[in-house]
Amino acid sequence: MAIIFKELLKDSKSRARLGELETPHGKVETPIFMPVGTQATVKTMTPEEVKEMGGRLILSNTYHLYLRPGHQLVRKAGGLHRFMNWDGPILTDSGGFQVFSLGPLRKIEEDGVRFRSHIDGSEHYFSPERAVEIQEALGADIIMAFDECAPYPCTREYAVKALERTTRWAGRCKKAHGREEQALFGIIQGGTFRDLREISASQLLELDFPGYGIGGLSVGEPKELMYEMLDYTVPLILEEKPRYLMGVGSPDCLLEGVARGVDMFDCVLPTRIARNGTVFTHTGKLVVRNAAYAEDFTPLDPECDCYTCRNFSRAYVRHLIKANEVLGIRLTTIHNLRFIIRLMENVRRTIKEGTFLEYKEKFLSRFNSD
Amino acid sequence: MAIIFKELLKDSKSRARLGELETPHGKVETPIFMPVGTQATVKTMTPEEVKEMGGRLILSNTYHLYLRPGHQLVRKAGGLHRFMNWDGPILTDSGGFQVFSLGPLRKIEEDGVRFRSHIDGSEHYFSPERAVEIQEALGADIIMAFDECAPYPCTREYAVKALERTTRWAGRCKKAHGREEQALFGIIQGGTFRDLREISASQLLELDFPGYGIGGLSVGEPKELMYEMLDYTVPLILEEKPRYLMGVGSPDCLLEGVARGVDMFDCVLPTRIARNGTVFTHTGKLVVRNAAYAEDFTPLDPECDCYTCRNFSRAYVRHLIKANEVLGIRLTTIHNLRFIIRLMENVRRTIKEGTFLEYKEKFLSRFNSD
Repeated sequence: MAIIFKELLKDSKSRARLGELETPHGKVETPIFMPVGTQATVKTMTPEEVKEMGGRLILSNTYHLYLRPGHQLVRKAGGLHRFMNWDGPILTDSGGFQVFSLGPLRKIEEDGVRFRSHIDGSEHYFSPERAVEIQEALGADIIMAFDECAPYPCTREYAVKALERTTRWAGRCKKAHGREEQALFGIIQGGTFRDLREISASQLLELDFPGYGIGGLSVGEPKELMYEMLDYTVPLILEEKPRYLMGVGSPDCLLEGVARGVDMFDCVLPTRIARNGTVFTHTGKLVVRNAAYAEDFTPLDPECDCYTCRNFSRAYVRHLIKANEVLGIRLTTIHNLRFIIRLMENVRRTIKEGTFLEYKEKFLSRFNSD
Repeated sequence: MAIIFKELLKDSKSRARLGELETPHGKVETPIFMPVGTQATVKTMTPEEVKEMGGRLILSNTYHLYLRPGHQLVRKAGGLHRFMNWDGPILTDSGGFQVFSLGPLRKIEEDGVRFRSHIDGSEHYFSPERAVEIQEALGADIIMAFDECAPYPCTREYAVKALERTTRWAGRCKKAHGREEQALFGIIQGGTFRDLREISASQLLELDFPGYGIGGLSVGEPKELMYEMLDYTVPLILEEKPRYLMGVGSPDCLLEGVARGVDMFDCVLPTRIARNGTVFTHTGKLVVRNAAYAEDFTPLDPECDCYTCRNFSRAYVRHLIKANEVLGIRLTTIHNLRFIIRLMENVRRTIKEGTFLEYKEKFLSRFNSD
């Protein structure tokens, strides 16, 4: 068995739960946020820095690594762990989401998707079998089935077609998957239609994957609608399976996802906004680029324990970002990732203590006060 | 006294010497290479990283900090050390070199230089008094007199005018300088004219600065001519004064400079070429961007002890650089700076052991073999 998931504790007042996920590269506690290392690097960070701030399980990207440097090169390097010098667990997505995001550059067929590289326009083809083959070459601990992610909004007809294809492709992925030490997760689709989510879940549960992604959310729909879909979808997944909400990483969505029983999350948001000079604080987001912080010699967030907040001021970080200095986006990235990772540490602690809902409400009342 | 310099040991076969420079922020051994932190950050690096690789004394830039974030802001932050969280010694240049490099954007007068900002075109004025005032606000341990750096090539007439003005400005800097805990260095000019170097040195020595920069070299002249100028100029400076060759940082020039009695060096070269994907190795420079290294899983330099070489391959570094990932230029910067800092460690060790010239020849025969 590639992974072993254990539910350790259920929150009595919500669907939140504490879990443990054992992988070939070590155990992690859930709920967990996975920093994203799209191109075999968590942007701006060394592996040691990610670890120091509490990062345990990272995500990397099949579509990007296939195009550059190429999965065969990564295989020759000894796999992704060795190539990027990360000895903890890794999850790779299937490339499905990226390929479908290419819009006019891609064409969906029953067998797979024809697409053009966003880098050089060259033509490529991903099928379920190919997505598995690439992910096997990369060698992550957890790999994802190749799915069709319907956009938001979309018609019921489109959502039905996408979910049915996703199920057929999930079956093909399972069949193609050979490396037993890797866990292959299925992805539940169904758009924002409750009954379609039920159909997708039941079809994928029949295929008996060791874990499930919840896909097709956080694609532009209102947050309330996403929460509603989680209310419906999460309970459909067997308790012994880890549940992974794909593409979610804002503090409020993480807390609402945990409260609805989600175990795993990933998102580029914390690192992406960091590079634009926006940082999380306990009282909401702060655009440190703004002139208001030019002579502010306090830390980004006085309550934060990250390297940046322990050593540098808003004025200095702002100066670096205005001057296009790399250290500026390093410092904001460190801060934002640590902020989210610490939030998840507090989530796990308060689930243990039985105070998760109180923590969540208190955090959100301050975070959303602006 | 702001700094105390001691010559500890003379090499018997060259002008190389081992020294110790005591500053308000600690002692450093010489000969030393100073990493450049133009905008209050050694590009891409944290202060801890610079320290870990053996960086002890760093240089920052008056012109750049004056324009952005402004010296008054740095003063309010508690000075440059505190602003950038560097507790070791700092040297600031006077801004003279940058202002003169602006070409058509500046106008030299006897009182000072009128110039336009390279950032927004706004008009500014630097005089010797102003350069000292700004450097006092920044608060470095060693500050430099405001000088006129003649270009190469230039006429004898131009070089005479520039050196005479440099002397007058040096006197004004000395008069304006009030912060006793800062050491103000004079800068010797004179272009590539032996007798003018002698005149400049004797005039500046009369002003009795605690240390001397050798300016106007490494501005495009052939290396042999620079070495010749050092042969003439260094012996003119009293033994008890540290000698600082400005803007020099290639391995061969560092070794030749040390052999001619230079104690201090700075240069953007190691960090600048790093950002273009070029790295030093013991057998010469290597352009790791090149396709030849796509599947090369060996370190940048197998003989190097830096973080990059201990943990990552040429193939990975190349991938990061090709993919425009910040970690790529971080890793090449770490490598190049460590390469130069280690070179200087070996220089000091071999001066102690009496084998400096042998070390130099052996190093250069391999480094220049390509």
